[in-house]
Amino acid sequence: MLREANIIETLKAQWPQFIGDDAAVLPFCDTQCYVVTKDLLVENIHFRRAYTNAESLAHKAIHVNLSDLAAMGATPCYLLLGIAIPQDAKEMIPSFLKHVKDIAALNNVAVIGGDTTASTQGFFISVTAVGVADPQCIKYRTKACPGDVLCVAGELGYAHLGLQALELGKENFDQFKQALLKPIAKVAQGQWLGQQAAVTAMMDISDGLAVDLKKLCEASLVGADIELDLFSEDAEFISACKQLNLDSQKIQLSGGEDYGLLFSIRKEDYLHLATEFETQFGYPLKKIGHISQIPGVRFFQQHQALCLTLTPFSHFGENL
Amino acid sequence: MLREANIIETLKAQWPQFIGDDAAVLPFCDTQCYVVTKDLLVENIHFRRAYTNAESLAHKAIHVNLSDLAAMGATPCYLLLGIAIPQDAKEMIPSFLKHVKDIAALNNVAVIGGDTTASTQGFFISVTAVGVADPQCIKYRTKACPGDVLCVAGELGYAHLGLQALELGKENFDQFKQALLKPIAKVAQGQWLGQQAAVTAMMDISDGLAVDLKKLCEASLVGADIELDLFSEDAEFISACKQLNLDSQKIQLSGGEDYGLLFSIRKEDYLHLATEFETQFGYPLKKIGHISQIPGVRFFQQHQALCLTLTPFSHFGENL
Repeated sequence: MLREANIIETLKAQWPQFIGDDAAVLPFCDTQCYVVTKDLLVENIHFRRAYTNAESLAHKAIHVNLSDLAAMGATPCYLLLGIAIPQDAKEMIPSFLKHVKDIAALNNVAVIGGDTTASTQGFFISVTAVGVADPQCIKYRTKACPGDVLCVAGELGYAHLGLQALELGKENFDQFKQALLKPIAKVAQGQWLGQQAAVTAMMDISDGLAVDLKKLCEASLVGADIELDLFSEDAEFISACKQLNLDSQKIQLSGGEDYGLLFSIRKEDYLHLATEFETQFGYPLKKIGHISQIPGVRFFQQHQALCLTLTPFSHFGENL
Repeated sequence: MLREANIIETLKAQWPQFIGDDAAVLPFCDTQCYVVTKDLLVENIHFRRAYTNAESLAHKAIHVNLSDLAAMGATPCYLLLGIAIPQDAKEMIPSFLKHVKDIAALNNVAVIGGDTTASTQGFFISVTAVGVADPQCIKYRTKACPGDVLCVAGELGYAHLGLQALELGKENFDQFKQALLKPIAKVAQGQWLGQQAAVTAMMDISDGLAVDLKKLCEASLVGADIELDLFSEDAEFISACKQLNLDSQKIQLSGGEDYGLLFSIRKEDYLHLATEFETQFGYPLKKIGHISQIPGVRFFQQHQALCLTLTPFSHFGENL
């Protein structure tokens, strides 16, 4: 089966210095680099117009790209916007553009170019985002070390739960639907974590914790032990999962599109950094386990290894 | 009717310093700027798989973006590749990626990132290209002055003729089909013209000479007089147009996707620069008229003003 991973490997073999992180790093000056990323939103793969209005589409197209910049510790500066518009989506374009302008301005980002075209089949959005970062503060996926504490900033599984509620046409579940439709990139958190020398590796969680952690481990040539006892009891999330007959633990581990940050912290700095993070942002970061020397991602509950069968998140069946 | 021009105006009102040229300019260091562009290729709008193989698709996706960099006088450096792949195009992807790698390498361009996803409807390609240029050598659309000589580097109408031949399923017409399927960005010419102080304004011709010249004139707050007597007699092109019942003059003026360069030269420097260009590149640049104070694009033949009704080129009916 042709997967994105194969495509990335093909290109990485040719350009190993660039490919593998959330965004590419280009030289700028001694104290700054440009950080560049590009994410697509494809109708009926990443969104459905039936329950996605112009505002949330503009919001998501921008924030999924800002999230890649956040994951590198960069400050967003510029966007390029490419849209291919089918006839029956023409009406929403003025509103979509207004929201692109507003959301870009709100995030201090200038739209510097792009391309607009018709589409005979489906609405396609391609955003390229450019940020700047101090080269000393850029975080990569490659520097996690055995013993590092693994942490997440942001909720796990909320977006997937929201997706299920929307696909099933369920009323309520609003905070979970919002998590899917209008994810908020952790830009300030990413910049702050970028400045912490104790943070060894970072990426955003777009494809689900288990899948993305595997990528981080492979890039750092390490493994990870996830301690499920550390996952907080989120009564509202668990109750909502029950209503939709969903396994809340599996959804936290494999649900995609939450756009939180996954990062590793040197063990000796964890407590101090966790306290500082909560002071800074008003909510705790989540400790979920630690980096191990043994390759692969393993799950533990009450010190027992668990054999979990997780289905990777795939939007509406995105696998190629 | 919603057109790309309206969308560009909407965004330009907000970010006037960035939008309006073939590519956006970002600071780098004292002697260099980054130049960034983004062009989409959408199935059945910009290409049909029936007569576009993996190689020409990769070639065109890259060269239409390199052409935007060439039009600014920049040297291409990096690409980001976004592809949304429908099930029935999966088979061509390994070959497409091989050609992306080869064509990028041939043009000294590194693929530094991108995004890959499935598509339920149609093949969609979004390329972002990044080049570098000396800020002193970047050419904009805004600096054409009355009296400047208007020139084109490259053929006019070839790609449109090729498109018609392909759409009609005609045999032969190979050089014209190639012009459409595998346009070659005028990268070396763009860089060279960028270094010439006598070149006052430049852009690439993607939407057809008349449409693109109008944009250049509007950006420079000038007009243009096109002298049709200056257009060379291209016997093979004229004969091919006759075979397809096409008006060769109108196709030269309005056919799109040739990806030549359109530029203005200070009158006193024209002869010298034209000679140098031919020495450098082995073919002459085409003088087509001059910049005028009077707004709009006017056409003259044997000193008589002509009233031409031109239908703007629109791929397969791209108008939104």
